[in-house]
Amino acid sequence: MSDTASSTTSTPLEADHPIRKAIEQAARLVRQRTPLAQSFTNFVTINLVANAQLAVGGTAAMSYLPNDIADVSAIAGATYINVGTLLPFFATALPQIAKELNASAKPWVLDPVAAGLGKTRTAILQSFKENPPTIVRGNASEIIALTHIWNLDVASESTLRSDETTRPAGVESVDEVDQAQDAALTLARFLSSHSSTGTAAVAVSGAVDLVTDGADVYRLPGGSEMMTKITGAGCSLGGVTGTYLAVSEALTAAIAASVHFNCASHLAAETAAGPGTFQSAFLDALWNTSATDIAQGAILLSN
Amino acid sequence: MSDTASSTTSTPLEADHPIRKAIEQAARLVRQRTPLAQSFTNFVTINLVANAQLAVGGTAAMSYLPNDIADVSAIAGATYINVGTLLPFFATALPQIAKELNASAKPWVLDPVAAGLGKTRTAILQSFKENPPTIVRGNASEIIALTHIWNLDVASESTLRSDETTRPAGVESVDEVDQAQDAALTLARFLSSHSSTGTAAVAVSGAVDLVTDGADVYRLPGGSEMMTKITGAGCSLGGVTGTYLAVSEALTAAIAASVHFNCASHLAAETAAGPGTFQSAFLDALWNTSATDIAQGAILLSN
Amino acid sequence: MSDTASSTTSTPLEADHPIRKAIEQAARLVRQRTPLAQSFTNFVTINLVANAQLAVGGTAAMSYLPNDIADVSAIAGATYINVGTLLPFFATALPQIAKELNASAKPWVLDPVAAGLGKTRTAILQSFKENPPTIVRGNASEIIALTHIWNLDVASESTLRSDETTRPAGVESVDEVDQAQDAALTLARFLSSHSSTGTAAVAVSGAVDLVTDGADVYRLPGGSEMMTKITGAGCSLGGVTGTYLAVSEALTAAIAASVHFNCASHLAAETAAGPGTFQSAFLDALWNTSATDIAQGAILLSN
Repeated sequence: MSDTASSTTSTPLEADHPIRKAIEQAARLVRQRTPLAQSFTNFVTINLVANAQLAVGGTAAMSYLPNDIADVSAIAGATYINVGTLLPFFATALPQIAKELNASAKPWVLDPVAAGLGKTRTAILQSFKENPPTIVRGNASEIIALTHIWNLDVASESTLRSDETTRPAGVESVDEVDQAQDAALTLARFLSSHSSTGTAAVAVSGAVDLVTDGADVYRLPGGSEMMTKITGAGCSLGGVTGTYLAVSEALTAAIAASVHFNCASHLAAETAAGPGTFQSAFLDALWNTSATDIAQGAILLSN
Repeated sequence: MSDTASSTTSTPLEADHPIRKAIEQAARLVRQRTPLAQSFTNFVTINLVANAQLAVGGTAAMSYLPNDIADVSAIAGATYINVGTLLPFFATALPQIAKELNASAKPWVLDPVAAGLGKTRTAILQSFKENPPTIVRGNASEIIALTHIWNLDVASESTLRSDETTRPAGVESVDEVDQAQDAALTLARFLSSHSSTGTAAVAVSGAVDLVTDGADVYRLPGGSEMMTKITGAGCSLGGVTGTYLAVSEALTAAIAASVHFNCASHLAAETAAGPGTFQSAFLDALWNTSATDIAQGAILLSN
Repeated sequence: MSDTASSTTSTPLEADHPIRKAIEQAARLVRQRTPLAQSFTNFVTINLVANAQLAVGGTAAMSYLPNDIADVSAIAGATYINVGTLLPFFATALPQIAKELNASAKPWVLDPVAAGLGKTRTAILQSFKENPPTIVRGNASEIIALTHIWNLDVASESTLRSDETTRPAGVESVDEVDQAQDAALTLARFLSSHSSTGTAAVAVSGAVDLVTDGADVYRLPGGSEMMTKITGAGCSLGGVTGTYLAVSEALTAAIAASVHFNCASHLAAETAAGPGTFQSAFLDALWNTSATDIAQGAILLSN
């Protein structure tokens, strides 16, 4: 935590690095097994989440009832939870679902959309501290805000940040990815220490994505800026992270999903004439990008 | 019911068969009258359901409140009900809606998504036995599960199937269409005997669709496998079945909708570069396929 | 109010008319500032609303909880409320939200989808009379119905219309835009008299859109009929009107959004092969149409 983002240097991961091999295997497994990852997600982008999961090779099921989630979790490889558009009953349903997933040691991904906004959302996110996810994926402001809501930033950062600066601009990040590195490391260590497998990861999405397991920090450049001009880029990445988590451990899943998205968005941007055709081309590219290309995508190791 | 699926033979329906004439007329009427079919459907694919209804020539209205559905049913030709993403209040709203639709003899289509999963869904589906729909459309596992939930399979199949084999893999079918033929026939006979018009149909979606009115069995090949790579292929087919039900009787509506989808998905697959452009091309093809082409689509009569 | 629609004449707005300058400035500001307009909108078209807001240059946030809306309203330039697919709790949430928005003088757009259908919707719409929006955007039947629900048509029209003729055909208009001119003028004057800034507008969507501030009436021709073959054309226009309202006053926002849509839909129709590719091309065209082209779009002043 003593390192600041500005002092980090990043070097490309070697072509034969074990992480790349793990990513390639994960991408192959998703396409061989069409794993089911279920989602409890917002109403805005629920369709894109499902279509992205199908486009990478998985299958999708979406539910809002604890008894549905419990039944499907018996056959699903992972669960994705996104707190974007809350309904009143989510305040009791979501804590119950997190408790049941963790009681049965089921891996799950949390997308803390708009963390810091709305007391219902804050209460739900607070409850997850007792039953934390395997992976948290969000933008920089959301990662910082969740770390703050869980009081994990008290020791190192309480004098640096006030509540105001950790509140996102709606669903947009007001912070840069690098500013969230300390929070991401702290959060990943907390998740790892509570994980039934001992492994966990945090993914911070931005111009250059950042993924960490609490030990190493990976930076993933190369995605298209057009991803910020369609709704659901982050949510669908969260859902696809769930798909990868159904066939691999947390760090591999988080990196594989982000790299797959970066490759596909880069490819889609080359042919798209605007955000409408970009979305179609992006789903096509998720489908068409090979496991080898994903594994050889841009990955930097920071230190 | 004594025939098993493996012993069936299927022959192409003649070009001037009355069913083909009924399909052509239905397709023409949809485009002339732009009939309204309202939907109570899941949040994942609600947009595609509406867009598919518009693309075949109908109009759409979506609601979740019994008083909305009742008001719109006065002006709608049919209603489509899909139990995909349940909210708690659906447990009372849906049985009430089914009761009101049947009390006023309004035709409706049931899509028993994920039948067999979740006690709330099971309770809702059980309640529909008292107020059954005009058409049930689902995948093989869902049709088998609904027949089981309604105890219609007791006499013939209770010794063959346990609860476990009738539970779908989330929203995916674990059974093949042929395995659901007996259940579809049983279900269609039950629906017919409770229909205010005496007619009803069951449609089983899969690689080759199966439609039956309880007497004859029709098989509809030719759809594209890419339909399994976009979310909502089944739901939008259910919604369009509602659109066709607004202008024709049950058997014609179920076959016409499936054949229209098969023609369009086949056409779309020829130009699509992946699931993203496939969805756009599929909606275009629904719009562009002529009534004559639909009526002359692949239809096999089984016996 | 004594003029009837049939006697109006319309003349093109001059190229250097102040309204055109205001539209051009608004379109530039949206792209410079990427303003946030939040939405409480229906589940059918929520994705298109967000994507359209992004495609014109703004940002989006969608919520259903009063505490979310209140938190986001502090950072959002405007709020868009659409009563399409109601859930039971909306009956209390929406009146509370309207009250809070008006108490803090926050501008908002109301889309009275299916006004006249369903007692829950009618009760919600009635409640808004006490806390009226800055802009109302709807089809002709919805504008007439809302004016009727608020008893604003008593003096002039009570003998002309019965409840029956003001009920829309589901979400489709049974009335022509011109038939709603009197209602739109009446409604706009009511909104202006209750607006914290003294300005307000009503937009009636149709083959030729009509926008009025209660004094002047503008007609906006040139949109593509394909807009009636995708779901959410009206809703996304409402959302984009919110985006423009975040950077300009009511009349400019309503006209700018409609003209931007008409330009883009005209452009999209030139290349689309059907409703699927039309939707993608439309979002592309929203993104690609310049502020100058929007400002020089077809606008007629009626008198």
